[in-house]
Amino acid sequence: MSIHTKIKLLHQSTNHLWLQQALNNLDIILLDHSHCERKAAGVAVNLLFRYPSHEKLIHQLTGIAKEELEHFEQVNQWLQKKGISLAPLKPSPYGATLKEAIRRHEPHRLLDSLLVSALIEARSHERLGLLADNCQEEDLAKFYRGLMASEARHYGIYWILATEYFDRVMVDERLQELAQLESNILSNLHPEPRIHS
Amino acid sequence: MSIHTKIKLLHQSTNHLWLQQALNNLDIILLDHSHCERKAAGVAVNLLFRYPSHEKLIHQLTGIAKEELEHFEQVNQWLQKKGISLAPLKPSPYGATLKEAIRRHEPHRLLDSLLVSALIEARSHERLGLLADNCQEEDLAKFYRGLMASEARHYGIYWILATEYFDRVMVDERLQELAQLESNILSNLHPEPRIHS
Repeated sequence: MSIHTKIKLLHQSTNHLWLQQALNNLDIILLDHSHCERKAAGVAVNLLFRYPSHEKLIHQLTGIAKEELEHFEQVNQWLQKKGISLAPLKPSPYGATLKEAIRRHEPHRLLDSLLVSALIEARSHERLGLLADNCQEEDLAKFYRGLMASEARHYGIYWILATEYFDRVMVDERLQELAQLESNILSNLHPEPRIHS
Repeated sequence: MSIHTKIKLLHQSTNHLWLQQALNNLDIILLDHSHCERKAAGVAVNLLFRYPSHEKLIHQLTGIAKEELEHFEQVNQWLQKKGISLAPLKPSPYGATLKEAIRRHEPHRLLDSLLVSALIEARSHERLGLLADNCQEEDLAKFYRGLMASEARHYGIYWILATEYFDRVMVDERLQELAQLESNILSNLHPEPRIHS
């Protein structure tokens, strides 16, 4: 059922049911996307607070946080253009379930936080790519294509940071576990259209 | 004891004791400044989460958060240049005392949050200006001068947002109370050199 080149890191590719759901609900997807960009910025900023002395993490995640805010702004401009008001939206269980998998104690907490963010960015990259390839609205497709590239860079940065602070074998083992969980969460389409439904 | 043109919003100007303390401890001030920029970004991002449907607030504070992260990055480059490691630093009581003054319930919580941020930005503007005028290190003085302008813009934005969501009389009354508190906190120099000691 895979409909796109497999993205490194992800255990299973997104299936066509999600794409249909998303294409049928582009306005809600756009609103959810705005929330996703804000949350991505929030996660990066939180890590800046939690690890104030980790120089490389600080440097890289400051850059990511800035870019996520830039994307948040761009998605919000799209919402405005389409006359969609900013409004809360009940999230799919995806983010919360992955967050629960982050172990509570250091150093595992850092490792898991970085890998969960890497997986979310990888999935976002994959799905924005599907929207870019299949969305009939040319300008919007172009916009998704532009964002895709950043998401790919971001998942690379999160993964590299993990290998910066942890042994490569440990990173790979934990990544396999979390990637399996990530794919499992998405294996049944969430009934409400979301970037991560 | 005032040593600089009075900044609108602030009840009392910074006195020369702070400037002496800061000039004698420029390295610690720079490290504290890094923490201040991160916290300023964190405050703006938190408000994005707390008021997800306030379009004007979202628009303006996304811009501020991006700029604070940009400054955080720039201050960190200065730290690196001077061989100062990123490290935690016990904050002065300034931020926490102002935060305590934010009322817990809406809509007061929003009003107070905006005004406290306006005051902190105004004070930062004033003090970075003092450093710009009095720091003997020419490049660093120039850097402070550059940041000053942004801080001035930021306090203007926070104040304008307050008048956007609240009656002007209500804004002015509460601003007077908070500005008095802000000046009181700083009336006795905190023994440890900080941007807000």
